Amino acid sequence: MEKNICSFREMIKEKRMIDSMLALLQWDLETQTPRGGYKLLSEMIGELSLKSYNLTTSEKFLKIIQKLKKGEDKLDEVIKKEIELLEEEISKIKVIPPEEYKAYSELTAKAQGIWEIAREKNDFESFAPVLEQIFNYNKKLIEYRGEKGDVYSTILNDYEKGMDAKKLDVFFKELKKEIVPLLKEIKEKDRNFSDKLNFKVGKIEQKKFSKEILKYIGFDLDRGVLSESAHPFTLTVDKNDVRLTTRYFEELPFSSIYSTIHEGGHGIYEQNIADDIKDTLLADGASMGIHESQSRFYENVIGRSREFWYGILNKSKSKYGMLENLTLDEIYKGVNEVSPSLIRVEADELTYSLHIMIRYEIEKGVLSGEYLIKDLPKIWNEKMKEYLGVIPKNDSEGILQDVHWSCGLIGYFPSYALGNVYSIQILRAMKKEINIEGALERGELKEIKRWLEEKIHRYGKLKTPKELMVSITGEELNPDYYIEYLKEKYRKIYD
Amino acid sequence: MEKNICSFREMIKEKRMIDSMLALLQWDLETQTPRGGYKLLSEMIGELSLKSYNLTTSEKFLKIIQKLKKGEDKLDEVIKKEIELLEEEISKIKVIPPEEYKAYSELTAKAQGIWEIAREKNDFESFAPVLEQIFNYNKKLIEYRGEKGDVYSTILNDYEKGMDAKKLDVFFKELKKEIVPLLKEIKEKDRNFSDKLNFKVGKIEQKKFSKEILKYIGFDLDRGVLSESAHPFTLTVDKNDVRLTTRYFEELPFSSIYSTIHEGGHGIYEQNIADDIKDTLLADGASMGIHESQSRFYENVIGRSREFWYGILNKSKSKYGMLENLTLDEIYKGVNEVSPSLIRVEADELTYSLHIMIRYEIEKGVLSGEYLIKDLPKIWNEKMKEYLGVIPKNDSEGILQDVHWSCGLIGYFPSYALGNVYSIQILRAMKKEINIEGALERGELKEIKRWLEEKIHRYGKLKTPKELMVSITGEELNPDYYIEYLKEKYRKIYD
Repeated sequence: MEKNICSFREMIKEKRMIDSMLALLQWDLETQTPRGGYKLLSEMIGELSLKSYNLTTSEKFLKIIQKLKKGEDKLDEVIKKEIELLEEEISKIKVIPPEEYKAYSELTAKAQGIWEIAREKNDFESFAPVLEQIFNYNKKLIEYRGEKGDVYSTILNDYEKGMDAKKLDVFFKELKKEIVPLLKEIKEKDRNFSDKLNFKVGKIEQKKFSKEILKYIGFDLDRGVLSESAHPFTLTVDKNDVRLTTRYFEELPFSSIYSTIHEGGHGIYEQNIADDIKDTLLADGASMGIHESQSRFYENVIGRSREFWYGILNKSKSKYGMLENLTLDEIYKGVNEVSPSLIRVEADELTYSLHIMIRYEIEKGVLSGEYLIKDLPKIWNEKMKEYLGVIPKNDSEGILQDVHWSCGLIGYFPSYALGNVYSIQILRAMKKEINIEGALERGELKEIKRWLEEKIHRYGKLKTPKELMVSITGEELNPDYYIEYLKEKYRKIYD
Repeated sequence: MEKNICSFREMIKEKRMIDSMLALLQWDLETQTPRGGYKLLSEMIGELSLKSYNLTTSEKFLKIIQKLKKGEDKLDEVIKKEIELLEEEISKIKVIPPEEYKAYSELTAKAQGIWEIAREKNDFESFAPVLEQIFNYNKKLIEYRGEKGDVYSTILNDYEKGMDAKKLDVFFKELKKEIVPLLKEIKEKDRNFSDKLNFKVGKIEQKKFSKEILKYIGFDLDRGVLSESAHPFTLTVDKNDVRLTTRYFEELPFSSIYSTIHEGGHGIYEQNIADDIKDTLLADGASMGIHESQSRFYENVIGRSREFWYGILNKSKSKYGMLENLTLDEIYKGVNEVSPSLIRVEADELTYSLHIMIRYEIEKGVLSGEYLIKDLPKIWNEKMKEYLGVIPKNDSEGILQDVHWSCGLIGYFPSYALGNVYSIQILRAMKKEINIEGALERGELKEIKRWLEEKIHRYGKLKTPKELMVSITGEELNPDYYIEYLKEKYRKIYD
């Protein structure tokens, strides 16, 4: 038995090393690879993905798993969970022919370069064929599994166990019913809180401030990196090497702040997974939705609170030149201004989930065959008009704005909305145990990080999203609190 | 036969892909890995190096080579050369036990982090044990080969075929005899040409200018990257993805310019290797010395000429804010000021090779057992005083200044001096065919690049350093021209 456990650990180590290498290549591709290098890097990613596939589906691995399962009662909960996750993964990918698996990895690696150029040149047509291939592959890869039910629900369940299109339909219906009219109400008031925040700040100062903010919220820069990319993201090599990106607009200094805090929330999660499970398959977020709950928690619940800014201004205003001429109230209202925006990652808290709703409807429509790829720019613009009341001038600020689809992440967007919902449930639970406002006002964010670490981060994948939520809040996903929270917060600000 | 060639190409492709991945990991390690990530990245590098080792020394590979050699008359010159290089490489590494090979790769990967911290903290003691291990490994790896002659000559010959300590002794003796007194003469004149160049320029402007300069000299930024690191270097993923670093000092704007031009020279070489040999083992510089000849050619022969600056000022002075208040003569004399410096990469053209001489003498001394690692700071400082007349205030600006040894590059430094020597021989040959001054004055550096591409770059490793030099200049390495050139140029400037 011990020998088998040893072999198992060896193979997991190998698998994790390949995944870490893939993460590094991906990081390179998205932050600095020159155009000339896309091809070779895509090939490398394809090669390594194939290696990972071959290892995961190898007879040798399967045999060890079988042997371990025979002595299951002697296994600890970590290894049991690893086996469970592995079996799930194997059952999903084993049905895919290896060449297809590799081709898909290469396609998505290549697609990012194509997307980037398409976005730069505002040329949806050049991206459309690749996007079509990606949607088709996603469909095909699910079909190989021969599962029942609709394809989209299967994909959603992959990202968030227990999720399906029906549950999301209910949530988005409620959202549409409550938030779209509230948004109209607020728009009519025609306030311009954020004008005061849109002054020019040089990139170097913004960079410095972003790093300060990361430290302030508890991200450890000795075990992490902050870089730049067209679309901010977080990527983990391992818990001691967690990489974030942000982006800087000289005329919108608060944009980089919130990108940074958002990715910082992801990063803090990854950095605080327990050392016990560091080298296991559990060293990852519980789900995409739970991951997003952490980034949204830091970005909105923490970062858009009055107390957070009070703490910063109070503690060290002089350090941050860019804040010097702002009052607390100007910052608070400015960063919470509701202003339907074209770009999701720039969206305010109230309208954010409406952006997700659009992606959700489009993904559903394309997968069901209702929407054609070529029509997406038009469909996008129509939905933007209907829900948010704004229309993109071009596709770069419309359908082409996000990197996700080019990475193959179809069905990922709803996680962002789930993250919002979870984050408010978590807030309610934390409030019962911690004086959050006080901690923020004193600038002591460690207390908050420790609570999250204790209740969520350290577990990695050991608990499912549902188990986590039940253990923290006493109930499963419940969108009502989120919608309530939005209504209350924004009615107050716009009263 | 065709089948064998096909298998051979497949294996070369695999080998090159591993090497490209290693290059990317190395790039990451030196430009951005956070401290927490050193360990895992070092492990990955060890893992991949082992893989490369296993592949190169595999029975399968050896068999294919044997089969190909049987039909040697049917092979083209490229594949013949590849086999020759491979057999050389295999004979060198096959004698090393694989675990030792891996351990050494891991050691040098780890050592860079240790060096970086030691340099930052001015703490030679913390680096000394690792440095000792590296020297010992280098010795041991050579001893496994059981070759005759002294270890240092074998190492030198690895970097530069045909080179040995005897030849270098002759060169450095001549250098010491001619240049050390000339330097004293110049120092007594006590001029301060460079004062005018040491004004403050922000990092962002320097960055912009560095990229402009790269384009200007012919480096293709669509197939390359310019980044930052403590010690500037060039690294090739493949010819379409060539990566350079530089470093910026706000008070010394010309420092980054010359680092950039130097690495740009390396980069141009790599980018212009012929497409025919792009995916072969020949897609690399002919030797370290030839590589350095290209960087030194661009840096000194081109970049420190009056005509180069005339061309830039004339063409687009307004574009480069930092040049606005300088005259041509101020720039020319400023960038050619002889001022014995503590730092090699900041050294002027005249004293540069004296820095190499110190490294040369120390490497020779350590390998022969004459010098102990613990005494190196003292020895370093004494030699600096004797040859250059300056003494480092601390080890960070003394023995710890360079990354090379921590990468395992013992015996590499002399390549820099050889590069200088070659560059002047190349200059003499080019002058016979091209009006270099005219091209520089007109800002048309393409002509120069094309000549170098035609005579040197495109061949990659197809020709040996000796073959290249003979075909271009009609003779082998000849240090006399270099010493003559230095004497003439600097007597004139300081007349």
